[in-house]
Amino acid sequence: MILVVALNPALDITHHVDVVDWADVNRPVDVRARPGGKGLNVARVLRSLGADVLLVGLAGGNTGNELRSALAAANVPAVFADVGGETRRTFAVVDGSRARTAIFLEPGPLITAAEYARFVGAYAEALGRSSAVVLSGSLPPGVPANAYAELVTMAAAAGVPALLDTSGEALRLAVTARPAIVKPNLAELESAVGHAVPWTTARDPAAVVSAASELLARGAEAVVVTLSADGLLAVTADGTWLATPRRVAGNPTGAGDAVAAGLVHGLVRGLSWADRLGRATALGAAAVAAPVAGEFRPADYDQALACLQITYWERF
Amino acid sequence: MILVVALNPALDITHHVDVVDWADVNRPVDVRARPGGKGLNVARVLRSLGADVLLVGLAGGNTGNELRSALAAANVPAVFADVGGETRRTFAVVDGSRARTAIFLEPGPLITAAEYARFVGAYAEALGRSSAVVLSGSLPPGVPANAYAELVTMAAAAGVPALLDTSGEALRLAVTARPAIVKPNLAELESAVGHAVPWTTARDPAAVVSAASELLARGAEAVVVTLSADGLLAVTADGTWLATPRRVAGNPTGAGDAVAAGLVHGLVRGLSWADRLGRATALGAAAVAAPVAGEFRPADYDQALACLQITYWERF
Repeated sequence: MILVVALNPALDITHHVDVVDWADVNRPVDVRARPGGKGLNVARVLRSLGADVLLVGLAGGNTGNELRSALAAANVPAVFADVGGETRRTFAVVDGSRARTAIFLEPGPLITAAEYARFVGAYAEALGRSSAVVLSGSLPPGVPANAYAELVTMAAAAGVPALLDTSGEALRLAVTARPAIVKPNLAELESAVGHAVPWTTARDPAAVVSAASELLARGAEAVVVTLSADGLLAVTADGTWLATPRRVAGNPTGAGDAVAAGLVHGLVRGLSWADRLGRATALGAAAVAAPVAGEFRPADYDQALACLQITYWERF
Repeated sequence: MILVVALNPALDITHHVDVVDWADVNRPVDVRARPGGKGLNVARVLRSLGADVLLVGLAGGNTGNELRSALAAANVPAVFADVGGETRRTFAVVDGSRARTAIFLEPGPLITAAEYARFVGAYAEALGRSSAVVLSGSLPPGVPANAYAELVTMAAAAGVPALLDTSGEALRLAVTARPAIVKPNLAELESAVGHAVPWTTARDPAAVVSAASELLARGAEAVVVTLSADGLLAVTADGTWLATPRRVAGNPTGAGDAVAAGLVHGLVRGLSWADRLGRATALGAAAVAAPVAGEFRPADYDQALACLQITYWERF
C-alpha cells in the first residue's frame, strides 16, 4: 500500500465563462467541483495505475464532508482527521474568449495541536502497512514548518521510503531527514539552495545537477527535478538521468502530481531509475494532455512512453 | 409570522484580493462565505427589525447543509425541502486595486416534481400561520415558470397578502394572481410591460406611473418600483407616492431585499402607504451603507428616515 499525505486538501471549483466581465455579473456555462490539492491528485493517479492507496490527512466542515463523499464515490480510500475549521476551496475562472485562467487559492483552516496529533496517530498506524509514503503540498496554518521533517523521520524509522514534494522552509527542513526522493521544480530548487539555478534549452544540466547534489549532501537519497516541457532530471548516487518527452499541449496543472505518482509507483515496484524516470515523465506528459488534474488517458501515456529520450551520465 | 420563500438560495462566497491577476494565481487576503439569495436577505432584515419569520425553500447537498447550519447559527428559522441536487454557490471577487467586483452566479440545481411538491406542502402548512408572504428571487431549473402565480393564488385563498419580487416570465404570470405588492426595478418593469419606461432625474414619474398602472390593471393591488438612488415609487388605487432618500455611497447588493423587508413589515403592522414607503426607502439606503447584503446599522436607518423626501399625488 502507498500512503499519501494530504494535510491541506481543497475543494477545487472551476467556472467556465464564455466572455468574462471582471466588473459585473457572469453566468458560467459550466461549473465543476471536485476534490483537489496535490495529495489527492497523486492518489487518483496511483489508483488509475492500479496501485493500492490510502490517503491520510486533515479535513473539516461542510467542505471537508464534500471531499470525503467525493473520494468515497471515486473509490479512493481516505482517513481524514476531523478539524474544527473549514477545508479550503480553490476557485478557477476560465475565460473562454481570452483562453486564460484566473485562480484564487483560499488559505487552509487553522489546525490546532490536538487536531494535528490525531492526524499523526492515523499516519503512524498506517505506516506499518505501507511500502512507501508520499508527502506532498503545502502545510495549513498552525502545522509546524518541520512537520514533513518529522513525518519523513517516522517513515525512515519504520523502514518506509518517503517521496517529498513541497517547497520553502518545509522542504529545507525535511531534506535533512533523509527522504528517498525529493521532487522540486526549478523555482523550489533555487529556493532550497539559496541561489539561481539556470536551465538552458541546450540541455546542459550542469547547474541543475550541481544544485541537486547540494540536496543529496544534506540528506536526500535522490533528487528529481521537474523541468516543465523538458522533462525530468534525476540525480542519485548511482548516476544522473535526463528523461525528455515529446512536446504536448495542454493544462500543466497536476502534471507534477502525476510525476510524483509515477516515481513512487516505480519505487515500490523496484524498477530501475531509467524505467522509473521514463514512466514518470510519460505520466506527466499524459497529465498535461488531460483536461483535469489527477487524470490521464492510457493512450496518451502509452504514446508518451513510446516517444521518450533518456540520457544517462554515470558520473557528471 | 412573515413567511419568506427561497426556492433558489445560494452560498455566497466573497474573495477580497489586493490586486487581481486575471491570468494567474491569486491569494485572497479575506474570504467570507454566508447564506445568500434574495429570500435569505429579506429574512435576515426582517429578523433585525424584530419580526417573526419563517424561511421555506429548497436546499440540497453539502452546500445546502452549510446553509441550514449557518441560518440556525444566525437564529433564522428555516424549513428547506431536501433536494437531490447541490444548492448553488455564488462567487464574488473584489479587486481592491480597481475597486470593482466580478460576480459569478452558478445555476441552481435541477428540481424534480416530487421535490417541488414537498416544498409546496411545507408552504401550504406554513401559510395557515402567516400574516404575509414574500416571494422573492429566481426559480431554479425544473420549477415551472408559473410557480409564483400558483403560490400567490394559494396565499390569496388563505387570506394572506403576498409581496412578489421577481422578473421575466415568472413576474408576468404571477401578476395576474393578484399579489398585494409587486416590487420591480425599472428593467424588470420594462420587461413586464414590453416597452421602454424612461426615468428622468427631473423627477417626472409619468412614464413609470403609466407602466405600473398596466400591472395594476393586470391584477397587482400595488406596484412599488425601485429607482436606485432616486428611491421608491408606489402606485396604488389610493394614489401615488415617491419617496427619495439622501444620497449614500456603498454597496447596492441586497438593497432591494431590504426594501422588500420594509414593505412587508409595514404591511403586517398596518402602516399607511406613506409610512411603509418611507421606512422601506430608509432601509434600502441603510442597506447600501452596510458592507454586507441582508444587514444594516440601526443608526444608518434612523439617519435615512430623518432625511426623506416624500411626494404624494392623489390622482396622477
